[in-house]
Amino acid sequence: MPEYHALKGSTKSLDFFKTPELAAKATLDAQRILGVDAAIMFADLLPVLEPMGMKLDYLEKIGPVFENPIPTNKQVDALSVVPAEEGVGYIRDTISGILSDLPREVDLIGFAGAPFTLASYAIEGRGSRNYVHVKKFMYGNPTGWKRLMDKLVETISNYVRLQYKSGVQAVQIFDSWIGCLSLTDYEQYVEPWTTNLMRRIHSQCGSDLPVIYFGTGNSHLVDVMYKTGPDFLALDWRTPLMPTWDRLGMPAIQGNLDPVILFAEPEVIKKKAKHILDQVNGRSGHIFNLGHGILPNTSPDNVKMLVDFVHDHDQSL
Amino acid sequence: MPEYHALKGSTKSLDFFKTPELAAKATLDAQRILGVDAAIMFADLLPVLEPMGMKLDYLEKIGPVFENPIPTNKQVDALSVVPAEEGVGYIRDTISGILSDLPREVDLIGFAGAPFTLASYAIEGRGSRNYVHVKKFMYGNPTGWKRLMDKLVETISNYVRLQYKSGVQAVQIFDSWIGCLSLTDYEQYVEPWTTNLMRRIHSQCGSDLPVIYFGTGNSHLVDVMYKTGPDFLALDWRTPLMPTWDRLGMPAIQGNLDPVILFAEPEVIKKKAKHILDQVNGRSGHIFNLGHGILPNTSPDNVKMLVDFVHDHDQSL
Repeated sequence: MPEYHALKGSTKSLDFFKTPELAAKATLDAQRILGVDAAIMFADLLPVLEPMGMKLDYLEKIGPVFENPIPTNKQVDALSVVPAEEGVGYIRDTISGILSDLPREVDLIGFAGAPFTLASYAIEGRGSRNYVHVKKFMYGNPTGWKRLMDKLVETISNYVRLQYKSGVQAVQIFDSWIGCLSLTDYEQYVEPWTTNLMRRIHSQCGSDLPVIYFGTGNSHLVDVMYKTGPDFLALDWRTPLMPTWDRLGMPAIQGNLDPVILFAEPEVIKKKAKHILDQVNGRSGHIFNLGHGILPNTSPDNVKMLVDFVHDHDQSL
Repeated sequence: MPEYHALKGSTKSLDFFKTPELAAKATLDAQRILGVDAAIMFADLLPVLEPMGMKLDYLEKIGPVFENPIPTNKQVDALSVVPAEEGVGYIRDTISGILSDLPREVDLIGFAGAPFTLASYAIEGRGSRNYVHVKKFMYGNPTGWKRLMDKLVETISNYVRLQYKSGVQAVQIFDSWIGCLSLTDYEQYVEPWTTNLMRRIHSQCGSDLPVIYFGTGNSHLVDVMYKTGPDFLALDWRTPLMPTWDRLGMPAIQGNLDPVILFAEPEVIKKKAKHILDQVNGRSGHIFNLGHGILPNTSPDNVKMLVDFVHDHDQSL
């Protein structure tokens, strides 16, 4: 959105995330301009790893990069678990900044990376195509993997608790890279820790904080992902919405329009959105959403049109 | 493999694919050194698009690139469908070169790209992350899409017929990018043409040429992909082998070890291979294979060890 680029100016991405006034304004602008029913805290998955000892930067055209990706046990041992208030305290101010200006009827959704996706990033050091380094580490160094995942679960759950205490009304756990794993690898290397994370979040925040668990390219993993204990799943566009909802018997579901559809003509966008809404057929508990993040160069006008279309459809029910 | 690098020297990739003596030798070397039960014709998916009018090059660190990706209807109209003997006649010589030196008991598998994956490459122009251009084209220009896919089906089926007439004993159709589509998009934009391709191959080559259809990240699509009419599917590591085999009732199945596992220690590789073999439990029709192509920097020794391990296991049954 042009409003975001104007706000960001020459501020570096990492500084932007860590400056509560800017992150709060970006959150509020997006919610107000697009007219969506909930606001998503403007943040990134990775800055929570900084206070652990990971050196993070966001590079032009490359994206986030760690200068010191994890190749050894020793480096895992050196990672610190610091209280979230201390390590990422700025998120509290971002959230209170958002809440002071967010309309009462609009909920604020917090978010955090899932243990596997954060571990992958810490090991790969940057975006990856084949995830060779993380799988090699996982297969070859079970002790190091356990230590890393244990530390991540503690760090993430504390980060979520801080968001909860600061006032978010739901939290979404992003496992963006989980689709690279087979089911047996998920069961062995991920499930115990994600289950532990869900348990910690529920015990630290109580049952009034809905926890949404999201993955991409993970049709083959949705059953075991739901088993880890989130309140419900958010699906990407590859996983069929209604059969999955029915099979898992979840109280709610989020998804799942392919974000690339927003590059199409308005009539195509409406047709594709209607296809989802027709399947859901007014069933309570469906949160209409894209199946992944908004892509760069998406037209904000198309997003607004989509939001209006979904609202009109809801009113017609 | 060092043998391949020695053979390739400074030959450009595209020239290598189009030089029958080199491509045949690469095929034979790989089969002999690794000790696999079948040889795969050394070739790439994309050169078949060259005689249609697409300008192809292979760039260092980037991979295949089309100088003239398709953005318009007019360009689709300009694409030629030329007889395979004329456009890609070198493949006949590659195959006869392979067959003259391949041990009798070893089958030769040909291969070709599937219509969607070739259309995507022609439109994106190079490797893609989000497939924005191809989906935009597909959603926004149904007429152009139909013409493009029609031409591809004709080109691919003629290419397969040439391979068949030259002596391949099976053919594998690669839909490497298909996993980016939702089920409804596959049904609308891909299924009719893939079905048509399978029908043409079967009618041109008879039922004695087994056709294997392969995709990646496509757990959500395997049912409809099998419905298009291949003899059976090859699965990537994300799609569970036995449940899929049982559900679809296929006569055979190929797959599905994650190629990244070859970067692990021998004990891990054996354990993971055994996990697949134990599931299959000697059932006839399983072709042990990786779930995708070999990755760069994979140790040939690990591949040889895996081949030996699978052979030893077979003999112990």
